[in-house]
Amino acid sequence: MFISFEGTEGVGKTTLIQKLYEHFQQQGKAVVLTREPGGTPLAEQIRSLLLSVNHDEQMSHDTELLLMYAARAQHLERVILPALAEGKIVLCDRFTDSSFAYQCAGRGLSRAKLQLLNQNFVSKMPDITFWLDAPIELGMTRARARGDLDRFEQEKVVFFESVRSGFAEIHARDPERMKRLDATQAQEKVFADALSSFK
Amino acid sequence: MFISFEGTEGVGKTTLIQKLYEHFQQQGKAVVLTREPGGTPLAEQIRSLLLSVNHDEQMSHDTELLLMYAARAQHLERVILPALAEGKIVLCDRFTDSSFAYQCAGRGLSRAKLQLLNQNFVSKMPDITFWLDAPIELGMTRARARGDLDRFEQEKVVFFESVRSGFAEIHARDPERMKRLDATQAQEKVFADALSSFK
Repeated sequence: MFISFEGTEGVGKTTLIQKLYEHFQQQGKAVVLTREPGGTPLAEQIRSLLLSVNHDEQMSHDTELLLMYAARAQHLERVILPALAEGKIVLCDRFTDSSFAYQCAGRGLSRAKLQLLNQNFVSKMPDITFWLDAPIELGMTRARARGDLDRFEQEKVVFFESVRSGFAEIHARDPERMKRLDATQAQEKVFADALSSFK
Repeated sequence: MFISFEGTEGVGKTTLIQKLYEHFQQQGKAVVLTREPGGTPLAEQIRSLLLSVNHDEQMSHDTELLLMYAARAQHLERVILPALAEGKIVLCDRFTDSSFAYQCAGRGLSRAKLQLLNQNFVSKMPDITFWLDAPIELGMTRARARGDLDRFEQEKVVFFESVRSGFAEIHARDPERMKRLDATQAQEKVFADALSSFK
């Protein structure tokens, strides 16, 4: 089973993933915990290009999108597909929905381009995606409290509102795969809601 | 005018580019000399990922292709298109034809995938492409004499034969844009042949 976790900054993805990881381990299941962009040494190097702030050279939107999919192709081939083939549960912090929400809904990049990359370079979609949804201000406050903001987190609130609406759009289109979790709730309640999706 | 230079290893691309660069400068023209993958600080970082040899983690073919196009998108937006807009001559060591020759003809990657990336992420093709053609053994001997071989140059001769046939295929398809130069000739003769294309 391939499970991805989506949402804007500071909504509690990491906490939920950790709780589910422990839950499945306690059930004696083999679980792989991974993240995007990243998940392999090479893909993590691509991640660091994506997240680094360079005031001298703005990254073009196409470059950002293609780097994301380069990292994803590596991650799929080296980590996700082999783990699934061995019957493991894969918990992945962000996947293609983040590309849609951040690059298309957020930055206005062509949806056709993204769709084309998904169709040609993503051979496996998640079985379940948890979308942790909360008002942007709440998440930003939590993200700021964690320390330095990376390139994505430095974006303006209006950008994150668009990203959130991108996730809402995917949820409306595909509610079977993408489960919305109310991330304003206590962590234990979010976890319980997530678990109920498996029943 | 946008001019690209293609060919397998050791065929004399660098020498020809340098001669043409000096030629255009002597004519008082503004010339930009650049290369792929690379051409901007970020694209050069992507280049170093592409060319580094890592025995622990093989790069997937899709990842290689997407990294190439990520670097290319950045190079186009930051260097090539602005220079052309200012009326400069752009001399570029490798461009999309290398992707076709190395990834598709060489590694057997889907031509449809490459075409799709070209159509969606390459807004400007070269006006002229010089293909420096020579038997593989000749070029490999020259490349080895230069020092260490990078990841691409470590490939087997049979691979480079396929790459060469990839360039031949493009030349057959589009002889107007792609001019074949006999790279077994003396450097001065190759340069003279290249110059005659502008008359």
